Amino acid sequence: MITRTEIDERIRRLQARLAESAMQAALLLMPSDIFYFTGTRQNSALWIPANGEPVLLVRKSLERARAEGLIGDIRPFPSSRELSALLGSEGDAVGMTFDAVPVQQHAWYSKVLPGRRLADCSMIVRELRSVKSPAEIGLIRRSAEKLISVFREVPAFLKAGMRELDLAAEMEYRLRRIGHEGFVWMRAFNQELFGGMAVSGGAASYGFFDGAVTGKGLSSAAPQGASLEVIRENEPVLLDFVGVFDGYLVDMTRMFVIGSLDAELRRAFGVSLEIQEAVRKAMVPGAICEEIYRHAAAMAEDAGLGGNFMGMPGEQSRFVGHGVGLELDELPVLAQGFAMPLQAEQVVAVEPKFVIPGKGAIGIENTFAVTEAGGERLTRLSDEIVEL
Amino acid sequence: MITRTEIDERIRRLQARLAESAMQAALLLMPSDIFYFTGTRQNSALWIPANGEPVLLVRKSLERARAEGLIGDIRPFPSSRELSALLGSEGDAVGMTFDAVPVQQHAWYSKVLPGRRLADCSMIVRELRSVKSPAEIGLIRRSAEKLISVFREVPAFLKAGMRELDLAAEMEYRLRRIGHEGFVWMRAFNQELFGGMAVSGGAASYGFFDGAVTGKGLSSAAPQGASLEVIRENEPVLLDFVGVFDGYLVDMTRMFVIGSLDAELRRAFGVSLEIQEAVRKAMVPGAICEEIYRHAAAMAEDAGLGGNFMGMPGEQSRFVGHGVGLELDELPVLAQGFAMPLQAEQVVAVEPKFVIPGKGAIGIENTFAVTEAGGERLTRLSDEIVEL
Repeated sequence: MITRTEIDERIRRLQARLAESAMQAALLLMPSDIFYFTGTRQNSALWIPANGEPVLLVRKSLERARAEGLIGDIRPFPSSRELSALLGSEGDAVGMTFDAVPVQQHAWYSKVLPGRRLADCSMIVRELRSVKSPAEIGLIRRSAEKLISVFREVPAFLKAGMRELDLAAEMEYRLRRIGHEGFVWMRAFNQELFGGMAVSGGAASYGFFDGAVTGKGLSSAAPQGASLEVIRENEPVLLDFVGVFDGYLVDMTRMFVIGSLDAELRRAFGVSLEIQEAVRKAMVPGAICEEIYRHAAAMAEDAGLGGNFMGMPGEQSRFVGHGVGLELDELPVLAQGFAMPLQAEQVVAVEPKFVIPGKGAIGIENTFAVTEAGGERLTRLSDEIVEL
Repeated sequence: MITRTEIDERIRRLQARLAESAMQAALLLMPSDIFYFTGTRQNSALWIPANGEPVLLVRKSLERARAEGLIGDIRPFPSSRELSALLGSEGDAVGMTFDAVPVQQHAWYSKVLPGRRLADCSMIVRELRSVKSPAEIGLIRRSAEKLISVFREVPAFLKAGMRELDLAAEMEYRLRRIGHEGFVWMRAFNQELFGGMAVSGGAASYGFFDGAVTGKGLSSAAPQGASLEVIRENEPVLLDFVGVFDGYLVDMTRMFVIGSLDAELRRAFGVSLEIQEAVRKAMVPGAICEEIYRHAAAMAEDAGLGGNFMGMPGEQSRFVGHGVGLELDELPVLAQGFAMPLQAEQVVAVEPKFVIPGKGAIGIENTFAVTEAGGERLTRLSDEIVEL
């Protein structure tokens, strides 16, 4: 579990970054950020000055925040007049995560904190959070073990004739029983995910989700994930699920088939394993994110699968991996446009996948930690297609 | 299902409200709003001018948006230069839902749409969406029937000795198998809900969720809903679950017990039924939301349960009902501070509940439509405590 010492260290690192950026404080409002810096996820606002002690201001539940929180000063949310006396002074630059905080919240704090200049500290917070401690990697590894235990059970319940929805329900039920926390935190505006994807066969897979495989979902209101399509023999069955235990996420994909897959699909799967291994080897501190992506895309291109890489032809995503931790869409992103270098102990889900129109989606996904020796796999389960 | 005629009518009503508010257009970015006005929930931005035709600009998936969307002009998201030529002109007031749109999105559109004044249209959109069409009420009624079918099965699987988590998993599994869409849309910043609440016995229930009963949850990262506590005989078992089918939500709570409840709990339950009936009768067009809440709170007070109404003593929520539709926290809210009058065909989940420290949570919840004859119940299942 996360200790008070680790929380202190996280706060100290943020304070150093605020000082470097000439911000006098950060005012954090996102639950995932508040949990990261305090150990409690209650409805609250967290004030972290560049110099001085953090204060957690709690709307609900104060009792629970005090029972769980790992910082010293936890108090009821004050009146707006008291806020201004409490939180810095006029002329301060105050960081706020503009990527996620709504305009109304920003406007309210601008009014009750006159003279402060609110500034965007999203990237500072996200970058700090992207580098995991040994304790966090331990928690992700534990989430992986639990998620793997359910993947191992798939041969017992996957049958021809069941619907994608039935398969998803079996996965979700087993994950829940072993403590899956249900809600998957995502940070990006306009994204959401329920549990995972159970997608089979040749039905076109196209949706809003910013990933290679989206699934058809159940309606135009919920247009991703499992559908009512029936799973048939000799068709690829892709299970892409997220484990969420004690707040920490892990992300995996495995392929299943009742019978066997044709040569084209098997070949594409082989290419996804080659790309995964190339990415894994490249995951060393200092490697440039978008260069790793471009190399992966070039490998797909060289294999004649460039038009199928990471999505339906015409709807391809331009990434091959994404950070995971408290959220499913953390930094770093192995994607076009991300010129930042990898750092040791970042944790990345690598997911080279192909969509072959008329045949289905195929690929692999594992979660790795960045180390000097390349990506260290946290999801230790055979990559091979499971033939039933 | 929702027809093109209904979508046209929704757009026409928004256009009238924009004109009244001297806004030249609305630029909608929230998935729930986009779905409401187009019939498709893809990653996109929706431009609705006060005069003229709406345009849906789609990032992903354009193909799916075109297949599902019920407006005429659906096109790829353009370059930022093209956006300015497409979306109104300098001097326009452009509505945006400041309650939910992040600061970064606001800043980006401010930059690419120079000279427009972005203004908050959250309340316009939320109020329009609060009044349901016959088709929408039909969909909510259908969601209710599906949710009820699972509530009816509870006696078959609720056993002493199971954990709250096991009970939640059984509910979730059955709901999922009949098409529950999983993700529960909530609008409020800082709120989230997974499925529902399965809460038993006397363990204190306190958490961030803005409701009467929160549950302990599984960890400080997921501090609401079912916990690992074991369900015992003669303790109240509260099941508060949301049905989500074809996008439309319904919300219900029922009480169960293995054995029987003591007199204090039974009496509190009786008071919750009396409050529910008083609220139901008061749910006529023109009734003032906060007056309904105050009357409910006064009834609890008169029964000697004022300190237990709608939450743990000291952590009480100050509401007794909330709108439902595409989101769990729609307008109207029967709460202190909501001076607005009810309108016919608004749909409200009414949930008078009590928390008795050391004994547990007890109460009722049903979803009603506002009519001239008072609330019309959409969740038609006996309110009585189910004794096993």
